[in-house]
Amino acid sequence: MIQYPNGRKNNYHAAAASAANRGMDLEKDINITNTYYLHTDKAVIHKKPTPVQIVKVDFPRRSAAKITEAYFKIPSTTDYNGVYRGRAVDFEAKECASRTSFPLKSIHMHQIKHLEAVMRHGAIAFIIVRFTQQNETYFIDADKIVAFWNKAERKSIPYSWFVKNGSMIPYNYVKPVDYLSAVDQFYFEGDSNDSK
Amino acid sequence: MIQYPNGRKNNYHAAAASAANRGMDLEKDINITNTYYLHTDKAVIHKKPTPVQIVKVDFPRRSAAKITEAYFKIPSTTDYNGVYRGRAVDFEAKECASRTSFPLKSIHMHQIKHLEAVMRHGAIAFIIVRFTQQNETYFIDADKIVAFWNKAERKSIPYSWFVKNGSMIPYNYVKPVDYLSAVDQFYFEGDSNDSK
Repeated sequence: MIQYPNGRKNNYHAAAASAANRGMDLEKDINITNTYYLHTDKAVIHKKPTPVQIVKVDFPRRSAAKITEAYFKIPSTTDYNGVYRGRAVDFEAKECASRTSFPLKSIHMHQIKHLEAVMRHGAIAFIIVRFTQQNETYFIDADKIVAFWNKAERKSIPYSWFVKNGSMIPYNYVKPVDYLSAVDQFYFEGDSNDSK
Repeated sequence: MIQYPNGRKNNYHAAAASAANRGMDLEKDINITNTYYLHTDKAVIHKKPTPVQIVKVDFPRRSAAKITEAYFKIPSTTDYNGVYRGRAVDFEAKECASRTSFPLKSIHMHQIKHLEAVMRHGAIAFIIVRFTQQNETYFIDADKIVAFWNKAERKSIPYSWFVKNGSMIPYNYVKPVDYLSAVDQFYFEGDSNDSK
């Protein structure tokens, strides 16, 4: 057990430390990483709220409004966005349970169109895919995934394609999915901006 | 009644045309404007979904999952963001029912902190305030609102401050809140980027 200088364990350390769950929850790991980026003032990147169609709301006396009927909506954009080094950042993250291939239907067509649009306007755009069985997490720049999608010769992308076209994102204790290191490599020629 | 070449009225024209409701729904007007920007490929800017804490979900047979208990959460960021001319864009929009002043409590403290953070990282950051009685809509760059907030000498900002420090956003039939024209003035020295 690591002793922290102030005797307290930071919550996001505790969450990251549970290696057993590492492959189980990419979203949680990305949220921990984004919180780390925020606390260290490296970037401001948030997950968007889940889009919900609210149908009925009750207003009980003396308590908060209660939504009693609502439905999930299909997201029209990606899940994560924000700002890094002056640029807009936009990405989607997906877990893949198969050892051999990633089903293209995991990403909605309008999410691909969205990635194409933000790329065209100059954003840093990518996807993060975690193969849960291998417990490997890949950064793939949006232009590569969009090009694959537009060829549409297959309904899934082989694991080997990710090894070849992506960058594996190393696991780090305080930033379990340190995707900005891949962004630095890909967009800023390896300059890590850590002096900032 | 305007006759459209193809005999159809576009939905966002119809919505924008209702001048009677113009002051009533800033959010709707911004959404129409964002859709216009998206369709004309000028920018990719979306409203974030309303953050909701989902407590209970039913899965009725043969139909979509139904959320039966959920609560509104206080947003930790601003409502709108996206990408324009390679830069991250981030803003909040508020209506003001008072003719004389805008209550500072309309903007949450963490939204101010968020605007400060994205500014520091190079985003185009601002707020849009509509005085519904005057039916005037103002663009105010985030550094001005943050500076006012941090002085905290008053609990509200006088209307005259907006006239002096903001830029009035002109009403336009197809883009009822054409805030990017103010962004062009403020961030790109008036270059409108329309050739893009």
